[in-house]
This record gives sequence, structure tokens and C-alpha cells, in this order.
Amino acid sequence: MRTSIATVSVGGTLAEKLTAIAAAGFDGVEIFENDLLASPMSPAEVRVRAADLGLSIDLYQPFRDFEAMPADLLAANLRRADHKFRLMRQLGADLLLVCSNVSPAAIGSDELAAEQLRSLASLAAEYGIRIAYEALAWGRHVDDYLHAWRIVHLADHPNLGTCLDSFHILSRGFDPIGIEAIPGEKIFFVQLADAPILAMDVLQWSRHYRCFPGQGMLDVRGLVGHVLRAGYSGPLSLEVFNDVFRQADAGRTALDGMRSLIALGLPEPVVPTGLAFAELAVADPARLGELLAALGFVRTDAQRWEQGAARIVLRTASGEPELAAIGLESPDPDAALTRARTLRATVLPGEHAIAAPDGTQIVFCPPTTVPRSGHITHIDHVALTQPWHHFDEAALFYRSVLALCPQPSLEVPDPYGLLRSRAMSAGPVRMVLNITQVQGIPTQHIALACDDLVATARALPPDLLLEIPANYHDDLDARYDLPFDHRALGIMYDRDDHGEFLHLYTITIGRVFFELVQRVGGYQGYGAVNAPVRLAVQHSRGPMTPQ
Amino acid sequence: MRTSIATVSVGGTLAEKLTAIAAAGFDGVEIFENDLLASPMSPAEVRVRAADLGLSIDLYQPFRDFEAMPADLLAANLRRADHKFRLMRQLGADLLLVCSNVSPAAIGSDELAAEQLRSLASLAAEYGIRIAYEALAWGRHVDDYLHAWRIVHLADHPNLGTCLDSFHILSRGFDPIGIEAIPGEKIFFVQLADAPILAMDVLQWSRHYRCFPGQGMLDVRGLVGHVLRAGYSGPLSLEVFNDVFRQADAGRTALDGMRSLIALGLPEPVVPTGLAFAELAVADPARLGELLAALGFVRTDAQRWEQGAARIVLRTASGEPELAAIGLESPDPDAALTRARTLRATVLPGEHAIAAPDGTQIVFCPPTTVPRSGHITHIDHVALTQPWHHFDEAALFYRSVLALCPQPSLEVPDPYGLLRSRAMSAGPVRMVLNITQVQGIPTQHIALACDDLVATARALPPDLLLEIPANYHDDLDARYDLPFDHRALGIMYDRDDHGEFLHLYTITIGRVFFELVQRVGGYQGYGAVNAPVRLAVQHSRGPMTPQ
Repeated sequence: MRTSIATVSVGGTLAEKLTAIAAAGFDGVEIFENDLLASPMSPAEVRVRAADLGLSIDLYQPFRDFEAMPADLLAANLRRADHKFRLMRQLGADLLLVCSNVSPAAIGSDELAAEQLRSLASLAAEYGIRIAYEALAWGRHVDDYLHAWRIVHLADHPNLGTCLDSFHILSRGFDPIGIEAIPGEKIFFVQLADAPILAMDVLQWSRHYRCFPGQGMLDVRGLVGHVLRAGYSGPLSLEVFNDVFRQADAGRTALDGMRSLIALGLPEPVVPTGLAFAELAVADPARLGELLAALGFVRTDAQRWEQGAARIVLRTASGEPELAAIGLESPDPDAALTRARTLRATVLPGEHAIAAPDGTQIVFCPPTTVPRSGHITHIDHVALTQPWHHFDEAALFYRSVLALCPQPSLEVPDPYGLLRSRAMSAGPVRMVLNITQVQGIPTQHIALACDDLVATARALPPDLLLEIPANYHDDLDARYDLPFDHRALGIMYDRDDHGEFLHLYTITIGRVFFELVQRVGGYQGYGAVNAPVRLAVQHSRGPMTPQ
Repeated sequence: MRTSIATVSVGGTLAEKLTAIAAAGFDGVEIFENDLLASPMSPAEVRVRAADLGLSIDLYQPFRDFEAMPADLLAANLRRADHKFRLMRQLGADLLLVCSNVSPAAIGSDELAAEQLRSLASLAAEYGIRIAYEALAWGRHVDDYLHAWRIVHLADHPNLGTCLDSFHILSRGFDPIGIEAIPGEKIFFVQLADAPILAMDVLQWSRHYRCFPGQGMLDVRGLVGHVLRAGYSGPLSLEVFNDVFRQADAGRTALDGMRSLIALGLPEPVVPTGLAFAELAVADPARLGELLAALGFVRTDAQRWEQGAARIVLRTASGEPELAAIGLESPDPDAALTRARTLRATVLPGEHAIAAPDGTQIVFCPPTTVPRSGHITHIDHVALTQPWHHFDEAALFYRSVLALCPQPSLEVPDPYGLLRSRAMSAGPVRMVLNITQVQGIPTQHIALACDDLVATARALPPDLLLEIPANYHDDLDARYDLPFDHRALGIMYDRDDHGEFLHLYTITIGRVFFELVQRVGGYQGYGAVNAPVRLAVQHSRGPMTPQ
């Protein structure tokens, strides 16, 4: 498929947007009218610039509030269209997006809408231009893609077709199966956007929170399947309105958009089966080694500590201790690396190693089986704080490159602000991505799964544990009648409909701390309800300086 | 009235919150349970700390999911309550907030709710504690304050009353007049919060966007009137969940909360009648003087330039040129200053001068009448960029101290991010507050009202005007058939249901530029639709360095 993207999807001036879009490898662009209006480049200059960059101009957009207007407004609307058609000739664009009318003056008549769109298409034909009519999710009378198609069908003009937008269809919960009933040659254009599920006004949701396919929770991939089965052969074009993307680096955003389209064309990835290891870079490994020994880990070579299937590597490096690499068990490390390369991930030296968006190294490893050797059995999850403007990029990376499924976002209050937290998981492989502007808290942690946290906690030296306030334990006593001494052992507790969660935290070393967790039954979460207490204590203790 | 505030309303640890709340002069606090759970201070220590700070502990909150539960859950709920009552005794709190149940297990029976709340109140009575039952806006069966009151009335226990929360009542559009039918002595507590009008899920709206009374668009003042007429004599307590306040300085937030309560107790302010002058601080006034002369201003003394009622003062000061002071015509400058002082505004040396939250000096002046002397008649509005974490504080200041009414917020896309813009106005007095994280654009401007912008524009040297892209003028031609040469004159245009708006911009000097505007008919806006084009050009031109 040809790839395209609306200029509104990335930040910068029109010239900067075009440069970034071409550099990311798109075949074409949609020119968003406001970007052109604010540009000193004339339409003819834009045409030349795009051609020089190897970009086709696939669409000019949007043309608003046209169809089904009272007769006295039609002439002014056609006059406005005529101006735009002349502009499009200079621009070298031959497809105009017409959004369904939102004006209070619009009349709820499909016949009138079809008649006026036919007039528009006839005028467009004189310029060699075609019209793609799209149902906005908040259109006054037309808000359903099948309704828009019925009007196009009724108008019956060769220069009039429909435009399908995944956000407008999926945000309203319309079933995209109906796309397959539309003749492919009457689908003039397809725009793709994903979005998180948000309970808010659909217009605000659309204007601020759209994201690239794979970054949100809409089934864009399924919709593309319907579009292809309908026989559509035009470009797949990204159209994203996102407050963060507007502020971010245009080149990085455009590349991430391209990555989202590549991912749509790939088969489902090979799912990882476990967290093989976590590697910490640390100037002096003695203090961390002491902590690991106290947790029951055994040193198996100069750098490696093991317990069950939990492996921690302490690599000597300057700077404060931080999580540098994560091993992912994959049934096919070669295929995983090839997929990552196809998705333009940065491939690192060494075997099957790539870089995550925040620089953390990800290494694909063959699965191993390991006998149990203590109460700690494996790595339950790894939590990483992301730069706030890379959160969507990270979600796409973990999903499309690593085959982890995004879970809903959670908010965690810290004394000095909010953290937003989103788990990405596939069976036993769990990564938690956090963003926050709060300073002074550890930004990474490794959670170790334990088969008997009470026994493990009894054996731990108290000075290695984060001290939890007595008030927290009083509250646990008010809510539950727990059969273990959570207060003396420093164990925190949560419960959901599926099971129970016991956990405790170590002190922080550098940027990193460890969590010990025990899942009882089918508990699905991460103890987020207890995170505010943990964060408050971590603030008050400050980081432990390594020596 | 006694003043109180929930600890959740400000940032920091519990100890930091108490200190900030006391310093701002509150009489008491509501202890938010999560703040206590995360604190190393025991309830008894919190009691002593609050007493040392002169704060009463007016409420402990929240106690959730209690009433109308199946019988088998009642015992556990009473056990949980018993723990909390014992805690409250240590804390020295004798009022517990019970929110209406949100649990799926809750039963929709008022009789059962009343019966279980009566049990709770009986248990509370043994500890000398009272229960304030509140309808959450998203309660499962009880979401209306009058419904909560009916249940309290039905339960008929002296230790059970109701809690009224302005957000829960006004966000759902319930008429607060019904408050007057509740006996004042059965209103055990009143919580106040304002909010902007947002079309979103009410729970998310409540948890992230509440603000202090006067900062949003809810009629909190009206609600307080009903509460007082009902005979309520307890504290008025602020309870605000706000993402920005969590991150902001606790002392500043608490002071602003206190200011919002003081404002509720004051009579309506004297409304200003005009913008008397704008004063620019500038190292070398020659370049700005040249610009003002070109705009038709006449120099009337060493620092003062005038045209009609528009007066610009150029005060010599180091640093890049910036707007330093604004004169507001007031029918009673003495009363305005007294009110500002009462509201804890910073009073500056000099006559009737105070500081706005961003440091801009505001001077109250007696009104004057001035004969017309050119096409520029007066200052139409002044636009100021606010630090993002002071936006709500600024809104409260401009409303409560200066008597300007907040208008809805608008979003303006810039090539490198979004600006949020909110006008505050009273008749001819208009101030526009912007926030943005975008760098490299001028942050202040003075808009001069003009009675014939076409004639004025003809007389202006083109090199003093911001150059607007031809594409913008092409679009105006497509949309309108304007009877003046907007392209040659560099005039931008907008239209609403009430009238028309013609405007143009000068080049930027330091942080400041001028806008010339002509309002035709009853146009209410500020040409926001054209601001993205202006911003794009200002980015490309960069600031003009003053000489």
C-alpha cells in the first residue's frame, strides 16, 4: 500500500513538516489547509517542494459545511469551492476532503445533500478534481460512515466518492464490517488514527488525543482488513490531532507514524514467553550484590546473580546505577530481530539487541528452563519511566516490536504531582511504563515474583526494606483480616475480583529499587493502590547513594 | 464563617500541607485519608501538629461504599468504621464524611441505606463522632443531594447529617435552591469547589479539573447563599482535586484558596469602566516611540504618548521591552484598592497600585473623558502570557480583585504547540490571558481600538506591519467578498453572529507587539481564528531587537 500522512499530524512549519515526512519515507501527504494558510510558500512552491522531496500530494483538506444547505447559501459555497479548486490545481492536488456538515443551518435531507454534492462534483470535474465525502463523528445530520456512503451512492457522480476515517468510525462504536459493502473504487481515501479509550466529548477526544495505529485501543488493524477486502487500493494515510505531537520533534513523530503503518502490514508478531534477565549498569556492584545476596540470589559468575528463573546482571559502568538492558525470552529470536529491524528499531551491536525509545537495551534470548532454587522464581515485571513526549512512541514500540498488549492507563498521585502508568503485557511478560514530571523519585524498578512472600520477608534484614508508615498498616487492619503480620514484615496488600497481591519494596540504589511480589489466584494488577504510599516514603528517604 | 480546606487540595506531604494551610490563615482542615496513610506522623502526632499550627480538624474523609449493602457485608463495613472511629479519636476529629456508595454490590433501597446509616451513626455516637453523608455525582444509586438528604431524614439519627459539595451538585445541573429546604442543623458540612465547563465524564472532571471558587464557571457564590439561608453555620471548606495544584507550590495554592473564600464573603466589586493606559518598560524608547508616532500617537510628555483615550507610557528601564503596568479606570479607586488589600493582593508603592500574579502592575485610576484625536480611540484589550501553573490563580485575581468576568477558554494551534487563551472582560475592559509551553513567540500585546482600520492601515508604513502570507488572503477571498483590499492593507478578518472584526499586527519589539482592531456591530471575540497564522509568522520573523 502507498503510505501518506496529514501535515497536521506532526509539529513545525509546513516546510519542516514536509521535510520530516519525506525523511520518514512516506509516499505522500495530505495538505491540511491551516498549515498552508500560515505558510509563506505559495501553493505552486509547495507543489515543487513536495515533488523535490519525492512526495505526492494525495489530498487537500478539509472543506467544511458544504452539503444540504438552504438554496441561498449554495452559491456562496460553490464560489468558495471554486477558489479551492483553483488553489488545488496550483498545488497539484486532485482530491478534496469534504467533511459532513456541522452547521446549524444544515438541513437533514439526504436528497438535498446528494444534489448539492453532485453540483460540487460536477464543478470539481471541470478541474479534474475528485471529492471524498466523509462522515464526521459529530456531523450535524451525517455522523455514520454508511450514511455518508448512502448519500454518495444517491448522488451518483464519478467524481464523488467517500473517505473513511478509522477514528470517526470506531470512536462511535460503528461496526466496520459494513465497509466491505462499499465498492472499493468508491472509497476515494482512507485515513487512519487510533486513540485511547476516553469518556469524553468525541470532538475534544478527536482534536487532542488521537494517536498512531497501535498506540491506542481502537482496532485499526481490523478496520484496514475490511478496507482491503472492499477492494480499496489508494493510500493508507495517517491523520492525527495530538497535543503532544504538536510539541514534539517532527522527524521523530513522522518516523513513528511510518513505523505504525509498517506494523499494520506485518503479520502478528512472535509473542515473548518470559523476562530472561535484567541488567543493571553500576559503578561499584558491591552494594547491589549485597542486596541481591540478602534477597537469596546466588552469584553465578563475575556479573551474574540468579535465583530460579530470575537473573540479574550487574555490569560495571560509570554513572549512577540504572537499568540498562532487559532480556526477553522469544521462541524465535531471529524473527524478533528481523521484525524489529523492519519496524526501524535501532539495532545495537551484540546478539539480537535493539534499543527501546528511552535507550534501554532489549535483548531477544532463547527460552530456558531452570529448576527452582528459592522463593524468588522469576522477574514479574520491570517498570521504566519514559520521557513524557515519548509515551505514545514507547507504547507502539512495546506493542509492535515486542508484541506486548497495552493495558488501560492508571493515574497514581505522588505528594508532588501525578504519575501516569500503563502496563504492557503478554502472559508472564510484563513491563510498566510510567510518565511523570515529578522529580526526586526512583525511575526504574525490577519486581521479582515470589512464591512465599511471608517466608521471604521474614528472612530479610529490615534495613534493606522501604519503611512503610504505620498508618498504612492500620488501614489494612480496618479493611482486611489478614492471616499474616503485614506490619512486622512490611508487606503491602491488594485484592481484586481474581485474587490477591502481596508486595514489598527494597531501598533505592541509584535510580533503581526492587519489589518482591506474590500473586495469589488470578490477580491482574500491580498494586497501584499502594503506590502513592510507596512514592511518599521514597520522597522522604531520598536515593541511597551507592558506594 | 469559619474557613477550612481538604489536605488533598494542595501539594506536598501531610506535614507540608498543614504548614501551608496554616500560613494561609485557614481555621481548620479536612484530613484526606490518603494523605494520612502516606505520612510517617501518627494520628496523635497530626493532632498535636494541627493544634500547634492553630488548625482545627474539621473532617476526616472519605469513608466509601458503606450504605445499602447486602446484610453479609454490613458487619465488615461496621468493623472498618470502628477502626476509623478509633483513629479519629486519636486524630481529634469528630466528623466523618461518608460518600454515597459506588459499589456494584450496593442495593437501590433508601430504606436499607437509611437503616445501615442509622447503625453507623449509633456506633459513631459511642465515640462522640458524627457522620456527614454526601451524594457523589457518580454514586450508584444516590447521586443527587436531595436524595442523600431524604435518606438522612429517613434514618433520623442525631449523629447523622448531610454534607453538601458544590461540585457534586452543580456539575450535574441540580438546582441548589432545594438546599434551603434542609434544616441548617442537619447540614453537617459544606465543601466548595468550582470547575471549568468541560464535556467529559463527571468523575474524571471532578478528579482532575476542580478549582477554587471563582476560578471556574460554576455558580458557587449562589450555592453558598442557599446554604447560609438554610441556616448552616459550620465551616466553608475547599475540596479541590486538580492536577496542576498537586505540582504547584503548596503555600501559593493555599493562599489562593483562602483568597477564593474571602472573595465569596465580599460584596460584588466595583466594575472598572475602561483601560486607562498601558505602560511599557523599555531601555531605549526611541524605536517604540517611532512605532507609536507612525500609528498616529502624539507625545504629550517625556514618557507619555496619546491618541483619543489610548495612552501608552514608555518608562525607561533595563531589560527587553515589556508591558510593566496597566491602568484600569475605576469609579472608585479607593474602594478597588481596599478590596485588593482584603483579597491579599500585593500592594505596591505609588498610588492605587497592586501586582497581578505574573508581576504586572495594575493601577486603579479615576475615569477621564477625552476628545477623539485620531482613528485610534482607546485600548481594546491587553493580552498577557501567564506561567502555566498560575493560570487559575490569575483567573481568580482578575475576577475577584478586578471584577472581570471569565470567558470560555479557547485553544490556538501554533506551529510548535498549543496556546490556551481565556478572555476576562467587563464591558470595554478586556484582558486576554494565555498559557503555552511554546518558546520564541512574543508573550504580550496591546490591542488598540480603531474606528476606521482601512483608513489607518493605508497610512501605515508597511515595514512596521507583520507580513501576512498571501495564502491567508486567498482564503479570505474564497470565503468572503470583502469591500476593502485586505491583501494590500494586510488586514485580517473574522465574522460572528453579532458582527465583524478587522485587525492587523505590528512587528514585535522585545516581548511586545501592537494589534489594531476594529469591531463592527456586536462582534464579541478576539479574532482567535486568525491567531495561528499570526503565530506562524511571528515564529518565522523572530523578535525585532530594540535599538
